Amino acid sequence: MQQVRLGLVGFGNVGQGLAHILRDYAAAYEQKFGVRFVITAVADMRLGCVYHPQGLDLAALLAKVEKDRTLKGLPDAQPDWDALTLAQQAEMDALAEMSYTDLKTGEPASTYIREALRRGVHVVTSNKGPVALHYGELERLAQENGVQLGVEGTVMSGTPALRLGREILAAAGIRRVEGIFNGTTNFILTKMEEGAPYPEALHEAQALGYAEADPTGDVEGYDAAGKVVILARLLMGVQMGMKDVDREGITHLTPEDIRQAKQDGRRWKLIGTLEWKDDRLYASVRPQPIPISHPLAGVGGATNAIHYTTDLLGEVTLIGPGAGRLATGYALLEDLLAICQLTPG
Amino acid sequence: MQQVRLGLVGFGNVGQGLAHILRDYAAAYEQKFGVRFVITAVADMRLGCVYHPQGLDLAALLAKVEKDRTLKGLPDAQPDWDALTLAQQAEMDALAEMSYTDLKTGEPASTYIREALRRGVHVVTSNKGPVALHYGELERLAQENGVQLGVEGTVMSGTPALRLGREILAAAGIRRVEGIFNGTTNFILTKMEEGAPYPEALHEAQALGYAEADPTGDVEGYDAAGKVVILARLLMGVQMGMKDVDREGITHLTPEDIRQAKQDGRRWKLIGTLEWKDDRLYASVRPQPIPISHPLAGVGGATNAIHYTTDLLGEVTLIGPGAGRLATGYALLEDLLAICQLTPG
Repeated sequence: MQQVRLGLVGFGNVGQGLAHILRDYAAAYEQKFGVRFVITAVADMRLGCVYHPQGLDLAALLAKVEKDRTLKGLPDAQPDWDALTLAQQAEMDALAEMSYTDLKTGEPASTYIREALRRGVHVVTSNKGPVALHYGELERLAQENGVQLGVEGTVMSGTPALRLGREILAAAGIRRVEGIFNGTTNFILTKMEEGAPYPEALHEAQALGYAEADPTGDVEGYDAAGKVVILARLLMGVQMGMKDVDREGITHLTPEDIRQAKQDGRRWKLIGTLEWKDDRLYASVRPQPIPISHPLAGVGGATNAIHYTTDLLGEVTLIGPGAGRLATGYALLEDLLAICQLTPG
Repeated sequence: MQQVRLGLVGFGNVGQGLAHILRDYAAAYEQKFGVRFVITAVADMRLGCVYHPQGLDLAALLAKVEKDRTLKGLPDAQPDWDALTLAQQAEMDALAEMSYTDLKTGEPASTYIREALRRGVHVVTSNKGPVALHYGELERLAQENGVQLGVEGTVMSGTPALRLGREILAAAGIRRVEGIFNGTTNFILTKMEEGAPYPEALHEAQALGYAEADPTGDVEGYDAAGKVVILARLLMGVQMGMKDVDREGITHLTPEDIRQAKQDGRRWKLIGTLEWKDDRLYASVRPQPIPISHPLAGVGGATNAIHYTTDLLGEVTLIGPGAGRLATGYALLEDLLAICQLTPG
């Protein structure tokens, strides 16, 4: 039985989702993969920090957080620790970095990731900031220290958009990548097609927890643009900045635009695109009225999708969840299994 | 530079497709993966056999076959060799087995595969027969001899239906698998929805080379059932026989059935299904009028698709080519890259 010790930074939706999976599937993974995941440390800005080098009681920890919304008061609580202490000092084989996303600086997540990699600790993350801004540097740091950096969760959560392009289609010659990379805007557009005006559709997305109180990051296309930057780096080897993405949001779309498209056999989608044109990689995020017959047209609600156009395999489309606590937690687990080279036995 | 020596058994569509890829992308793969593929041997029932332990001239070989439809007369022609000699004697690191499919016996392909594995030679195959009938035995033989058996090409050609389920969703708890696993019938059903009666749609499929002169294997669902048997074995660990699949073809569908479904917002598709019911795995292939909103409903023409329902990641759909010389040749290449642990450098 292989044992993998994990430190968790960030214990919000995603962190708790991963912990739920590791609690509920512990016996299944022992049997199927011959692995036992042991969480030695958890640090969260709001909830506090717990640490035990032999492993924490995951069930007790989750029960405590669900009941009291804090980790303080647990036997292994570490009042003097924070996420940085965890990254620098906790006994662990891998760090699961799930703190908040900052697409301007990548901090503080990038610092946690660097500290862990320097110590020879693998890192898996669902955080777009460090990957969009500093992937090259972080990947080099991982290699120098003989460890790996897993980033599947940064695009389309556990739906393996990155693994499909980086591994399986790596030899097929990827010409073009298009996708629906933001579930909130796709939900709003789906509602608008059903007849709701934009403010009402946005309100429903907010009520369901898809959109934040300030929805700018989603509806103006910044979130999707961050994912396009990550895809450019990971699939095409091109480092772009956010400003290199030709970006347009969905806020100006009117019920009349939606109706007109419907009449023309089309449907508005917020499409992120990467395409080679004359040896230059062109990146955009913008609403487009795509034909109903296009594989992305049928993707409704908060679902995400990626559509690859390749030389050798033609067109390949992957559709799946783009967010959610279990779906994103699962992305980190996928990376951990790949890093530890665990396959069903 | 890693060198991988290949023997090819079967040099029809798929074999020539793989050879074309290896010829046209040789420089790209050297640069990207640090690998040089060297074809040392080719054997084909109709075209003859060529062998050179230092490697054949791939361009000359393909030119000869395209011009003369035979390998006989090439400098390295081996009049006394056949596919079995190749499997038993050729110098190679991997055998690409692409001979004809027999879903009743799995022969002669299974014999070639066994001979190669016993010699410590990796095998990659697109042949459904050996995998549907003898996967457990062949996989054990591979393990005993310290080599690997790659079978991605047996379902949906290079579209990674198997890798998605076996590796990426392996920890997600797969509840149900549904798919469009036969492009010929999907093409016919698409044409029927456009107004053609069954005989006319079949005729067009035959004219385009999708359907054979005797279309029974496709239109009665045997081909799809073979893939369902493979999926049951590889994803669920359950060995079924062809007769365990509840199978029904598309030949009885009338234009009236198609019209009625359309009126009800539905579309007929030949769906292969695997589902756990009370600890029993239930397998079927049958035409179903699925709702237009279902992710498989939009899959038109000869395209294939697989739809996974999982506990942790919800619903994940993969759509892509299900056949074709380059697409199936690419499946074998995917397996070779995975076996040699080659990743973009």
